[in-house]
Amino acid sequence: MKKHNFSSGPAILPAEVMIEAAEAVKELDDIGLSILEISHRSEAFSSILAEAIALVKELLHLPKGYEVLFLTGGASSQFYMTAMNLLDDAGTAAYVDTGSWSTKAIKEASLFGKIEVIASSKDQNFSYIPKGYDVPDSASYLHLTSNNTIYGTQFKDWPETNVPFVCDMSSDIFSQPIDIDRFGLIYAGAQKNLGPSGTTLVIVREDMLGKVSRTIPTMLDYTTHIKKRSAFNTPPTFPIYVCLLTLRWLERNGGVEKMAEQNLAKAQLLYDAIDANPLIQGKVNREDRSLMNVSFVMADGHEDKESIFWEMCEAADCSGIKGHRTVGGFRASIYNAMPVKSIEVLIDVMNDFANKYA
Amino acid sequence: MKKHNFSSGPAILPAEVMIEAAEAVKELDDIGLSILEISHRSEAFSSILAEAIALVKELLHLPKGYEVLFLTGGASSQFYMTAMNLLDDAGTAAYVDTGSWSTKAIKEASLFGKIEVIASSKDQNFSYIPKGYDVPDSASYLHLTSNNTIYGTQFKDWPETNVPFVCDMSSDIFSQPIDIDRFGLIYAGAQKNLGPSGTTLVIVREDMLGKVSRTIPTMLDYTTHIKKRSAFNTPPTFPIYVCLLTLRWLERNGGVEKMAEQNLAKAQLLYDAIDANPLIQGKVNREDRSLMNVSFVMADGHEDKESIFWEMCEAADCSGIKGHRTVGGFRASIYNAMPVKSIEVLIDVMNDFANKYA
Repeated sequence: MKKHNFSSGPAILPAEVMIEAAEAVKELDDIGLSILEISHRSEAFSSILAEAIALVKELLHLPKGYEVLFLTGGASSQFYMTAMNLLDDAGTAAYVDTGSWSTKAIKEASLFGKIEVIASSKDQNFSYIPKGYDVPDSASYLHLTSNNTIYGTQFKDWPETNVPFVCDMSSDIFSQPIDIDRFGLIYAGAQKNLGPSGTTLVIVREDMLGKVSRTIPTMLDYTTHIKKRSAFNTPPTFPIYVCLLTLRWLERNGGVEKMAEQNLAKAQLLYDAIDANPLIQGKVNREDRSLMNVSFVMADGHEDKESIFWEMCEAADCSGIKGHRTVGGFRASIYNAMPVKSIEVLIDVMNDFANKYA
Repeated sequence: MKKHNFSSGPAILPAEVMIEAAEAVKELDDIGLSILEISHRSEAFSSILAEAIALVKELLHLPKGYEVLFLTGGASSQFYMTAMNLLDDAGTAAYVDTGSWSTKAIKEASLFGKIEVIASSKDQNFSYIPKGYDVPDSASYLHLTSNNTIYGTQFKDWPETNVPFVCDMSSDIFSQPIDIDRFGLIYAGAQKNLGPSGTTLVIVREDMLGKVSRTIPTMLDYTTHIKKRSAFNTPPTFPIYVCLLTLRWLERNGGVEKMAEQNLAKAQLLYDAIDANPLIQGKVNREDRSLMNVSFVMADGHEDKESIFWEMCEAADCSGIKGHRTVGGFRASIYNAMPVKSIEVLIDVMNDFANKYA
């Protein structure tokens, strides 16, 4: 009897993950204690953390040399931490600006070195992914936001360059395989495909580190957390535990390869319904459409029907489909855990809306 | 049938809080969604955050001018954030070193200005709280660690000075009333008396801010989080929700005033049992004994019985009483939520141990 949850994040998690998480809040694996009250240095939690790290490596097929960290502070903290750790005062980093999150990443990184914005889609309100630009070989890294949750755009092809990518994958990590060799560092707030809010996944290739000369507070230095395996201080134990439950679910359900197939099919269903609907239109270039965040607005001339559609969604228990507060319109987020059935319910609402008001 | 949980943190929470938290992971307040999957900008979560902030203000009787923030990164992040935000390059801050956490705070703060360690109990392995020192009037602030979880010491009287305190209260916040006028900033990792790990409470008086000239990354600037009421980016929603449940429990159970009474009585029970036991001895100055973390070792000449005692504790389902890995011995953490019954079980074990092996 639950709602159809199209929230952009914190977002839907697999139903069985939520049931297992609730059980562990009562009691973890028959140890006589709740997951909420055990020491981060207990055997029980140490094995949770180790298994979560191992599963990230396994599911993403990470080769040797890549470290997996569970940190805090969200992608917003990685905006400055990446530059603080990877970009020397005299260095230059290249950034592609695909809106909002990229824009914030550029602002924070600028405190630590020279930032060159080599491409931007700002000219068309971030409705496409820039293509055909050159990446300067001298750049310490190229920063990309793989999927923009607000506008609903997603990289389908990576730029041609030998410069390593630093990538904000908050909203599409674990939704598809990763061509890992291109990436020097990947970061992702957990609260889309991985878990609840409160932990941030960082994957970093060792050779990216040790190249800056500035003094870094201990907690902001990736090497601290690598050496202490994400337990230098007390990590966010419950959020990490729920990530582990989701990673196990991913493994049981065919991994990121199977997710990629399903996500393509689910997004296609919804985009087809939008394209066929005379009252609704997509907001972004078709080839750049996100498979995670399906953004749409009322079609030209039908802007006055927005509240009607929204009320129909509410009545059908479709929750969380309002667009981001900065852009308006609608956005259906359809992460890994989103059942096809919920998408079909939303499509029924769309069709019903067209039948009644077109 | 649960264990008696003497863990130093993450630590025991009230039984009813854990039951309510488990329910909310299944479904939050009949809204058709789990607490794990709702947007941090939803009405449901906005009201959780607002109520948590209001309850902190109410329970600690915070006057106007004090802001309450729920951040991440633990006290370990506050070690540098406090200095970064409050101490100008040309300024001096005074620190009292009561071991481990203070020592780390001193190290991190040294990156941002001059640190003067005005008192330390290092000469006697941090077994007491220093007294009788002068605080230089020119100091921007005086940093204290109100309770040291590792050694089991606690401030009972505050130093005489007009310099505002910056205080790490991770392990005794909400255990007693606070003489708030003395404090410019208080920080506390949630995972003792407040909630699970994953969020950090910061209470800051407005006049402490705006005095440094350095550029601070947006996420590390307290003013960012004050302006956005702890929702500049996605906060750790579930940890904050559990804090709210604990704050409600505190309110229902007489607030920090009642906790102070109970904590004194509970600690007295346990210290009396230790003092009466020929095989066990306390580790710290009696007048500086912590009401939260009761540390003890085998009495002189009985060091060989340590493993026997530990096994007796395990057999009685007393969990988490090993001392911190850096100091050894034993430590029974008895936070607000610790029932008298569990303390009595531990005392029975101590008495049984003496009867059998003295």
